[in-house]
Amino acid sequence: MGLRLADTPLVRAFERIQREIDVAFDALLPIPDDARARLLEAMRYAAIGGGKRVRPLLLVATAEMYNVARAPAVRAACAIEAIHVYSLIHDDLPCMDDDAIRHGKPTLHKAFDEATAVLAGDSLHALAFEILAMPEITNDSFARVDLVQALAAASGANGMAGGQMMDIAAGEQQFDLHTVTKLQQLKTGALLSAAVEMGAILGRVGEENRAHLRSYARDIGLAFQIADDLLDFEGDEGKAGKALRKDKGRGKATFVSLMGADKARDQAQALAEQAVGHLATHGEEADILRALARFIVERDR
Amino acid sequence: MGLRLADTPLVRAFERIQREIDVAFDALLPIPDDARARLLEAMRYAAIGGGKRVRPLLLVATAEMYNVARAPAVRAACAIEAIHVYSLIHDDLPCMDDDAIRHGKPTLHKAFDEATAVLAGDSLHALAFEILAMPEITNDSFARVDLVQALAAASGANGMAGGQMMDIAAGEQQFDLHTVTKLQQLKTGALLSAAVEMGAILGRVGEENRAHLRSYARDIGLAFQIADDLLDFEGDEGKAGKALRKDKGRGKATFVSLMGADKARDQAQALAEQAVGHLATHGEEADILRALARFIVERDR
Repeated sequence: MGLRLADTPLVRAFERIQREIDVAFDALLPIPDDARARLLEAMRYAAIGGGKRVRPLLLVATAEMYNVARAPAVRAACAIEAIHVYSLIHDDLPCMDDDAIRHGKPTLHKAFDEATAVLAGDSLHALAFEILAMPEITNDSFARVDLVQALAAASGANGMAGGQMMDIAAGEQQFDLHTVTKLQQLKTGALLSAAVEMGAILGRVGEENRAHLRSYARDIGLAFQIADDLLDFEGDEGKAGKALRKDKGRGKATFVSLMGADKARDQAQALAEQAVGHLATHGEEADILRALARFIVERDR
Repeated sequence: MGLRLADTPLVRAFERIQREIDVAFDALLPIPDDARARLLEAMRYAAIGGGKRVRPLLLVATAEMYNVARAPAVRAACAIEAIHVYSLIHDDLPCMDDDAIRHGKPTLHKAFDEATAVLAGDSLHALAFEILAMPEITNDSFARVDLVQALAAASGANGMAGGQMMDIAAGEQQFDLHTVTKLQQLKTGALLSAAVEMGAILGRVGEENRAHLRSYARDIGLAFQIADDLLDFEGDEGKAGKALRKDKGRGKATFVSLMGADKARDQAQALAEQAVGHLATHGEEADILRALARFIVERDR
């Protein structure tokens, strides 16, 4: 199941988007000839050469189903990845999860310092919206505003950041399955859904198909987090490239602690198949999204 | 020169925008019935009831010169103020300026905790762009995209956050006047300029007048920072509502340390008058901007 072992269309799609996102960030983040050089170096350290790029692939694969040109889709994918990367930088800070390793290398505040990590996160956050305002994305300004709306809503207090706040509270109070589901829908699901939504915006997808895509995104978002909890519970730190079993150590409720590993695994599989079911009106152009749904629950890191 | 002492059009304009921004943030930041309540309480603590609201007034006063309706201008002003507030929250963090007092009350990480402060800042950052994507701002989506572009560019690595990074470096290396000017143009000037630019975007201002407004904004931005350095050097901590004379303690180059207080004061006054000069093609509709330019160098906090 390793990402780089088999030569499948999904593996090739991952390799392609990983290359494209690295090239795009390299162009978007030139190092200036002044005291901001350290900031840009930090942004590059975090943004280039790490991460699976699940959100970019979701966005681009959705857009390609509707014949969106590759370049603008990759640009929009950089915006959502910039949000994801900033959130990892801030989540890793000592006052948050206090993590030392991310993607197999020192976290940003370890490699640089905390102040630079805060500012690099903030700068990537701003960059995301700067990218979406660029005419290169689409000359349809309605669509660009929609992209901004989707990404901002998914990343703020009613999305990712709100989920992270609930996650901090989860270390102090014992959450039930309903609350953990809500937490994860915000913390991880909102941005995964935004990736699909943004692809659909670029593809000018009609309301009926968009509803199917939203259902697909909701199911894979939940499956993704259950799989994450399983990996945290039984995974290999070397492959994960980060510290594992921290939730258990903190007594934090997870899908695994609440459902048990076997039921959690069944549930993730069922959600992936349910997600694939929402693509029934599509032909082979949706094969990457189908493979991605299954990959999300079968991955080993 | 106290803000609340004299009954002038500028004082009334400040009081009005301060009320309006508080009312708008109150509506934009409802407290949810889950574990995110603490996040929203923190956002409200930082966003409501504090600050002079210089950027909102700049934006609204510029927009009103071109007959933009009040409500959408105030909405857009909330977006830029959300960016300003988030930057203060993050700048006050222990790993940054480590400040305990802001607007005369404990800083957010003191009143809540560091993790909440990081997330409240991030959430206000996202909120800014969510606001700008709202159709209430204007039904012209070109203009909304322009607003997003102006605010994102002014707040990221090529604007405010980049300036903050230079400011951190200024504690370690001795900057000359040219570099301090660049630092301050990014750290403070970019967002003040964006306020005027956003007002001009809402007002569909033509290129010639926009160039005058940009020159006005550049001059008041620099004047604002020189005045800030003077206040830091000779001001009253009680009135400022924050710790002063920190730059001197750190041996950091400022306009005052590089030019001397007298020359800095003259320079700030000259810039304010130069800013007023850029409004020469306007009649009394620009009186608030004129008064604001003079207020910026005469304020005592």
